[in-house]
Amino acid sequence: MELIKNLNWRYAVKKYTDELVSEEKIDRIIEAVNLTASSCGIQPYRIYVISNPEIREKLGEGSFNTQIRSSSHLLVFAGFNEITADYIADYIAMVEQERNLEKGSLNMLRDTITEYFSPQSREQNIIWSDKQAYIGLGTALIAAAELKVDATPMEGFDPKLFDEVLGLSEKNLHASVIVSLGYRDIANDYLAMAPKVRLPIDEFSTRIN
Amino acid sequence: MELIKNLNWRYAVKKYTDELVSEEKIDRIIEAVNLTASSCGIQPYRIYVISNPEIREKLGEGSFNTQIRSSSHLLVFAGFNEITADYIADYIAMVEQERNLEKGSLNMLRDTITEYFSPQSREQNIIWSDKQAYIGLGTALIAAAELKVDATPMEGFDPKLFDEVLGLSEKNLHASVIVSLGYRDIANDYLAMAPKVRLPIDEFSTRIN
Repeated sequence: MELIKNLNWRYAVKKYTDELVSEEKIDRIIEAVNLTASSCGIQPYRIYVISNPEIREKLGEGSFNTQIRSSSHLLVFAGFNEITADYIADYIAMVEQERNLEKGSLNMLRDTITEYFSPQSREQNIIWSDKQAYIGLGTALIAAAELKVDATPMEGFDPKLFDEVLGLSEKNLHASVIVSLGYRDIANDYLAMAPKVRLPIDEFSTRIN
Repeated sequence: MELIKNLNWRYAVKKYTDELVSEEKIDRIIEAVNLTASSCGIQPYRIYVISNPEIREKLGEGSFNTQIRSSSHLLVFAGFNEITADYIADYIAMVEQERNLEKGSLNMLRDTITEYFSPQSREQNIIWSDKQAYIGLGTALIAAAELKVDATPMEGFDPKLFDEVLGLSEKNLHASVIVSLGYRDIANDYLAMAPKVRLPIDEFSTRIN
């Protein structure tokens, strides 16, 4: 199975070479993330693709994750701070248009989703958006592995710094999780040759037949 | 690209046929999820694979998601309620063993992870575990699609009911998110032929070069 081969090939790279990932491959990875499932299908996060070295230098300040600056590209998954009725209405209108449905034919869906989110706090919205972004993160790792691009998913970054440098707050976004992309430096990455460790399947999963 | 083809093929199935997914395919899907990345690599969730019809009947009570009972298998991603020092120590000991490292050689890693989690509340632990489970959810959807098995990711379920029926609380687990598996009933699923709708790439992603 391709996926299992690719998941076995990947690991969280600590040290990258200077080789850059082609823009074509980056496009494929982003396309895959855009196709990822999200709850209610409303894609409550955005992706920033950062190659600019000065900005990455700033973003990496104070983090133990040197990959923030020392990699080819950095992906920032930026979750929504709020799921607004306007956003839901716009998204559902787009769905109607793309599916050649009559305007208003998905009003019931729109209202159901809106009613679900309207009593929720900003904090609940943020947690929910983050979870959807993590589905996308998983897809990004798999997409990169299929293209033999290395990646490092990271939670160890300063979210406030990211919000400031990327101007996320004014767009009602926040940095949820990040991934660096590039090529592993086998000679200098102590993890490059370490066997992958996972739980025994019987400990990880339980069958109820 | 295989992944993009598979992501385009899949959709959130509303109506399944009676055909069962082979146990071999289920094994592959679980194996893929087990290989999924998690923060600190400590896999803070478990998977329940439920084919038993009576239990699924109970789990689906009160939910608008009929797929909980009307599908071949149900996967329940069950996040940890707590990230304990004992769990971290056991996990790191397993890593040492699997990598043929001397006992204690990863003590620093163990202590760093333990110190990171020790000041966190139970609620923070739950949110964090859920996010890791969602990475696994994305992998499950992709694994299923590669095997041409249909799937429906769902948040619309009663987590308390799941905890009770599956006895999750006593294992310090909670139901994070669920996925049904089976085969699409094209004739009776109004979504089977609907074009997939996603944001234009330029709206979804921003380049900073």
